[in-house]
This record gives sequence, C-alpha cells and structure tokens, in this order.
Amino acid sequence: MLCKSIVYSVQKSPKPRQLHHMPKAPLPGEPAKPYTLTEIPGPRSEALLNELSKIQQVASIQYFGDYQRSVGNYLADIDGNVFLDMFMQLSTLALGYNHRSILGALSCGGNQRVIANRPAIGLFPGLEWPCKIQDTLLQPCVAPKGLPCIFTAMCGACSIEHAIQMAFIKYAERHRRGKDFTEEEKESAPFNKPPGCPELSILSFEGGFHGRTFGALALTHYKYIMKIDIPSLQWPIAPYPQYLYPLDQHEKENKEEDARCLEQVEDLIERYEKNMPVAGILVEAIQCEGGDRHASPDFFLQLQDMCKRRSIPFILDEIQTGGGATGRIWAHEYFELNIPPDIVTFSYKMQASGFYHSPEYMPKQPYRVFNAWMGDPIQILLLEAVLQTIEAEDLLTHVCYVGNYLLCQLNTLQHEFSDIISSVRGRGFIIAFDTRCRDMKQKLMHLLRNKGIQVGDCGTKSIRLRPCLIFGEYHADIFLEILRDCLQELAEC
Amino acid sequence: MLCKSIVYSVQKSPKPRQLHHMPKAPLPGEPAKPYTLTEIPGPRSEALLNELSKIQQVASIQYFGDYQRSVGNYLADIDGNVFLDMFMQLSTLALGYNHRSILGALSCGGNQRVIANRPAIGLFPGLEWPCKIQDTLLQPCVAPKGLPCIFTAMCGACSIEHAIQMAFIKYAERHRRGKDFTEEEKESAPFNKPPGCPELSILSFEGGFHGRTFGALALTHYKYIMKIDIPSLQWPIAPYPQYLYPLDQHEKENKEEDARCLEQVEDLIERYEKNMPVAGILVEAIQCEGGDRHASPDFFLQLQDMCKRRSIPFILDEIQTGGGATGRIWAHEYFELNIPPDIVTFSYKMQASGFYHSPEYMPKQPYRVFNAWMGDPIQILLLEAVLQTIEAEDLLTHVCYVGNYLLCQLNTLQHEFSDIISSVRGRGFIIAFDTRCRDMKQKLMHLLRNKGIQVGDCGTKSIRLRPCLIFGEYHADIFLEILRDCLQELAEC
Repeated sequence: MLCKSIVYSVQKSPKPRQLHHMPKAPLPGEPAKPYTLTEIPGPRSEALLNELSKIQQVASIQYFGDYQRSVGNYLADIDGNVFLDMFMQLSTLALGYNHRSILGALSCGGNQRVIANRPAIGLFPGLEWPCKIQDTLLQPCVAPKGLPCIFTAMCGACSIEHAIQMAFIKYAERHRRGKDFTEEEKESAPFNKPPGCPELSILSFEGGFHGRTFGALALTHYKYIMKIDIPSLQWPIAPYPQYLYPLDQHEKENKEEDARCLEQVEDLIERYEKNMPVAGILVEAIQCEGGDRHASPDFFLQLQDMCKRRSIPFILDEIQTGGGATGRIWAHEYFELNIPPDIVTFSYKMQASGFYHSPEYMPKQPYRVFNAWMGDPIQILLLEAVLQTIEAEDLLTHVCYVGNYLLCQLNTLQHEFSDIISSVRGRGFIIAFDTRCRDMKQKLMHLLRNKGIQVGDCGTKSIRLRPCLIFGEYHADIFLEILRDCLQELAEC
Repeated sequence: MLCKSIVYSVQKSPKPRQLHHMPKAPLPGEPAKPYTLTEIPGPRSEALLNELSKIQQVASIQYFGDYQRSVGNYLADIDGNVFLDMFMQLSTLALGYNHRSILGALSCGGNQRVIANRPAIGLFPGLEWPCKIQDTLLQPCVAPKGLPCIFTAMCGACSIEHAIQMAFIKYAERHRRGKDFTEEEKESAPFNKPPGCPELSILSFEGGFHGRTFGALALTHYKYIMKIDIPSLQWPIAPYPQYLYPLDQHEKENKEEDARCLEQVEDLIERYEKNMPVAGILVEAIQCEGGDRHASPDFFLQLQDMCKRRSIPFILDEIQTGGGATGRIWAHEYFELNIPPDIVTFSYKMQASGFYHSPEYMPKQPYRVFNAWMGDPIQILLLEAVLQTIEAEDLLTHVCYVGNYLLCQLNTLQHEFSDIISSVRGRGFIIAFDTRCRDMKQKLMHLLRNKGIQVGDCGTKSIRLRPCLIFGEYHADIFLEILRDCLQELAEC
C-alpha cells in the first residue's frame, strides 16, 4: 500500500482512530459529488468580474465563491457550480468550509468580545493571551521541539520580515560581544546608514517563495512577473536541489545534486563574508510555489550543520507546509534534525501567522521586533478550533493514510499516462505531479475545473493538490476518477 | 471657541447633529470616571508578564486588558483598574470597546460564515466582496475624491509595501513606453538583478514612520531602536518641516521652513536621477510616531506640484490619520489639493488595510501586486459597522467639535503651565503637546496613568492623544481635570 519510492517517510501508525473507520461516503452536509452547470467562470461570475475590474486587477480571479453554501470539501460558486476543492484557498483552510468547530468558535459571545476589541498585543494584550498561546501554539504536540518562544504577526510575509530581523539582530549581538550600541550606530541607524544599518545579507534559494513585501520578495526567486520593475537586494542566492524521479531509481544522481547545491551555499557564504556577511539562511521545508520541490532530509541536516559551524541562524519557512498539511504538524519533523532550527515561520493552515524561535534569539531590548497589532486574537481562536479538531479526530494519521492512498493511485496513473504526467511526489496532503509542458498543465486544469475539480498549479508545469485535513478516501476516489477521464481525453487528442 | 492659532482648519458646521445635544454624561455602560486600585501594572498583570516573558519580549507591554469588561471610552485591566483610554490601541479602535455596532456585526450568523471561510480574495472572492467594497471603502463620502480603485492587504506595513510596488511598476511602465518586457528583464528579475529589478528609489522624510517590514522600515526615520542592526536601502531622505509654535506668531519662519525642505526634496530628486531615480515620494498626512508633526497645506500642495511636474507618484500615508480621526475621513481633505494624490494608504481606524489609487495605476498584468489573502473580509465587516455609526451619529462633526474644545482647553493649560507643556497642536482627535524633556514626559505619563488616564507618546518629548470617535466633552473634562492635577503636582516638585 505504501509507496516508499515516492514519499520520504511514512507515519508509523497509518490507521487513523476515527475517519478510516468511516464508510467511503461524503461528510455531513456535503453533496455526493461535485457538479458544474456552466462554463467556468459562469455568467454571474463574469458579470461580477466585469464590475470589479473597474476598481481592482481581476485577471487572477477564477470565480466568485458562495461561502454561505460551501461545505466541507466543497466550494460552491455563485453560478450554482460546486467544486471538490483540492486547493482550499491556497492551502490556507485547514478544515474546509463552514466547519462546525470554526462556526462554534465564532458564535461564542465571549470570543466575539475578544474579536471586537482587536488590541495592540505588544502593548495591551488581553488577559487570555498568554493562556491561549500556551493552549495552541505552544502545546507540546504543536510547538517544534526546542523552540519555546514565539512572535506573532498578521500574515506570512510579515512573519518572514520579522524573522529575518531577529536573525540580523542576533548576528549583530554576537559580533558586539556584550557591548552596548555605539553612539555612531545610534546616530546612523535612523538614516539607513552603516554602522547602524550594517551591510548584512540573508541567503535564499532559487525557486523559493517567501512573500511579497520588500524583504520577503528579495528572498523569492520564482516567476518574473512578481518581481519585475521592483528594485531588490544583492543578497546571495543558492541553487536548490532538483531531483530526478522516481527517487529510488536516481539515488546517486540526487545525492550528487544535494552535494552540488550545498557546495554552492558554502561558496556563497565565503564570497559574501567580506562585504555583506550572511546573517541567516532561509529555506522552505518544501518549495511550494516553486513547483513542490522536495529536498532530502540529508540536505537539510547538512545545511543546518553548516549553519551551526558558522554560527549562522537557520530559518525554516513552514508557512505553507505547517499545520498538519504533511501529516505531521511540521514538515521538518520528517527530517529528523538533531537539533531544532533557530527559527520556524508559520501561517496558512495554522490560521495565526508568526514564527517560533529559540530563547537565545529573544532581543534584549523591547520594540526591536514589533508592530502595531502583532497578530490578531481571532487567528488564535480559529487555530484553537483547528487544533482541537485535529486532536479529536486524529487528523494527522488520517492525512498520512489518505495521502499515501492518493500518492499510490497517482503513481499508478502516471505509469498509465506517462506521456502526460510524471514525477508524482508528496508528503501527506502536499502532493504534486508534473505535466509534459505548461500548455498541457493549463489544458488539464481547465478540464478538471469544468468537471468540478479545483486544483492549483506551481512551478512551470506542475499541478499541486492541497486538500484540507478532512479530505477522505471517498473524495480521493472522486478526484481520481475524474482525473482519469481528463487524462484519457488528453491522450486521445 | 475655535482657536485658529492652533488648528489649521475648522469644520464649517461644528455642531454635530446628535452627540452635542447630549448632556455631559458618560455613555451607556460606562463608569462615571476612571479609577485605579493598584500601581500600574498591578500584581495580576505583573504575574502574567512574568509568565509571558518566558515566551515573548514583554518590556513594551503596559498591562493586560480585560476586554470583556471594557466599554466605550474605558479600558479595564485585569487588576480592577479602569482607564479613560485616550490612546485606543495605538489609535486603531474607532468606536471604543465593545461597541454595539461591532458586536452586532460579529453576532450575525451570515457574517460568521463569511469570517469562517477566509478566502484568497485575489483568486476566489466571495459573492459579497464587490458590493461590500462599494458600500464601504468606495462610498462617495469615504473614498478620497478621484481615487476609485483599491487594493486591500492584511496590515498597514503591507499596504505601504504594495503601494510602493505600484509606484515602481508605474514608473517603469512610463519609461517602457508601451513596449513589452525584454527577455533580459524577464531573465534577470527572479535573481534580483537589473534590468529586471532596476535601481529605483522612493523618497521619504526624516521623522516619518511607515511600518516595520523591510521596505516600510527603510522609509522610516525615527527611533534608532527599530532600525539598528537591520540592513537598509540607500534611498533619499528629505527633511520634514519642523515648525515653531504657536503657528500664528511664526508664520514667516514656518514658511521659510517649508521652502527649505521643499528645496532639499528637489535637490535630492536631481542628485538621485542618474543612478537611482526617485520613483515615488511617500509622506504621512501628519507625522504621528515622529512627534505629531504637522506640515502646512501649502507644503503638501507644493510637494504634489513637484511630483506632477516630474511625473513622480505622490503617495500619501493616511494609515494613522484616516478613518475620521481628524474630523474628516482623510486628513488630506484639509489640504484642499487641486488634484488627488496618486495613492493613499489606509489601515488603523479604517479596520481594513490597503490603499486607494487612480485608475492609471492599475497594473496591466495580474499577479504583479498580489498576496495570498489580499486582506480579510472581517475587516470590511468591521469597517461597515464603523462607517454606519459615523454616519448615523454624525461623528465627524462631533470629532471636530470636541477636538476643538479639547485644543482650546489645552491651550489655556499650556499658558498656565508653560514651564512644563507647550506646542499644543492637533486636528480633530489627533492632538499632541510637548513636554519640557523626555524625562518630564515619562513623569507626566506615569502620573496620568496612575490616575486612570491612558495616553500615548511620540517623538522624543511629546504626548499624543488619540481618543476614539465617541469621546465626548464629558470625557474631555475628566481628562482635563486630571491633567491639571498632574501638571500642578509637577509644578510643585
């Protein structure tokens, strides 16, 4: 059942306590199947798009959702179409649409009062804040081992921005060796000049995506359309391992690929040392936007080891991969690192955004890493509902089980339609496969969508699947059947 | 009644329809007065601070709020103290604590379903999105005149980040003269290199504050503690007018100050033209964090004129000043500009974050200014409640009326205690005064807080008042009486 060649690691107890006992059936309130009544986008979506185009760039909008009618794994649009949603709002919804635990949290009067008075958490946090943080982000089964401190922010990009600030501060503190700021540093900092604002850099990877703000975007090396015409920073960019699939047939080549990339990282650190030292290395646990590119646990182990040897903060971006998407709360649990990363960023399925860090990274002075809201209590209330559901329904085991099922079936399909799809890969519900070319990807996505399956794309020719945590075998079978139809149709063209 | 010397402009109808008819009395549910039972922070706050210090930097935290018990203008803490809150969570709460309209919006089941399914608005917006935007941000009495397009984001810093991206894109588009991207641009952009990522800059001002992300922080020139050890950008920084008060006694000097600053802006634009052209000028309508520094309408008129002559986008930051804080929805309404700014950013009292822009700034291609969530529908629902209340209770007129009352009384106090406070200034509820020195500021804030008045500080020695829009004469009198007591106490030291 478990295809070792296409996953890196497998949960030890693949049988979830509850959901796997369930018959292959829709969840309460869900339709039996997706259905479409119109071309996508339908006429009502088209009309609204036309309306909205006067005030916003709308070309990225696929259709308008009807979130009152959406339920579980199904996203309803305003033209009466109902999609089996395997993209789940860019992978940000953990429990699908209108989950009872989320609606329950929002209908509670006490919670409404917490939400109504969004505080400046860095100045006047609510009385429940420390306790809620302990019960959610810092639960022993949630917080990455060895990282008991957290910083919260409003979104993923802000998490990255503040995380790299903490790395810079730590780097400078280490070189200051306990001395106070000099007058020259204090006077130059407000004017962006050294020594107050030093020439330091963060090393990032080709194909990485970390967000759209200036710092996060400078660390992003993906599609040109998100960077063109925007100035950036001359920070070091290293190659990221690009493996040959299936993995078990290319062990040697892929090992060499790891070595090649790591060598270049080391080389870049040395080349930048004199004029713009590397104060942090930022890497995604899985490169998602860049094409669901997985690097091996060994790559991460060696990368972290290099950071340790050189006293460079090792920052792991789990914005897209955290919150149970891989069948563990954090994708990096699969890497079995010997020591924790220095900083781990989160957002998306975690509902709340921010980062974990080790105690030694806590700045000694206040207001150094800070912002007006420092996150929003509503995000913690939603996270609380998500974590309680994950625990109550043993959803991590469920994700491993159904994820493996889906991977195995996709593996079969890739043999059958090897001209069209290849390189099936994944961990839990972070699953992708390649198509022959960009054009083929568009065609397949179009066919799927018109048959009621919503997926996402990534890289240049990959299709990514990001079902929510309550996606079951029943839903997988619906998807697989429709995917087979689409592939058949493409094969016959 | 109206002190022309200390405000720049006065509403034509200073009598609000409703609130000014109200007797000087607390609002429903409010206590008669603030009261303190403990030192601040009290023992329960101290204990929680100690707890939280293990996981977060807490030195910025003043005390823990009890948001279930807070009401209207009063913030309750967890030690039984109740503060008259004239800082309102960094000026972000528009209607005070637990306002019926906000609680009403959150208790509505339909709204809860909108909130429960936070969509990726740039891909799958909800059916109500265009309509809600029209009814809130784009209402004719809300949207800045001539700016019918909007972009939404999660927080103020992200608004600035995306706003400057739009300026860069516009600048490049203008220089590209209708041509497509070159292959060289497309290939270099993902690697941060020119020509894809060009050497362009944004001009900002000394004393300005725009946020904590890399781009926003590079445009911020205020306290060293927020910038030290963090690398930055060598973009041009111009001086910001620093006026002598009272304004009517220093007209000539202040006019010269405007001319001096504008000359330097022009000089910087020319000096940067060759190697790093200025692609946008970013300025706050009132410099808030920097010390509530107001520049004259004439300064803004001339600055905008300079931008127009040189085809440089004029970006006005109204994150802290928008949403009715000045007695108009936008502070820049007081400037009586002949043409609209190119971009106006908002957040804070507007509940939602983002920016308005003119239609010509809309990028031609999708995904150029974009992020995962593109704001959050809950923010628009809260804004809707705020705007309906502003309209129903004529709160803008109310703010002008009570703001002028407060300014006049502070003006009297500054004559009486001229050794301690000076330079009373403000528009509507954006009010500040200077103290003799930083140490005196701390002492006065400490005294005020222990007598139950929560204010904020800004600049080096200024105290800022940021009451919410339902702050009345009754509350002003309580504040003024306690302030007088504190000043008396300081005078006797």
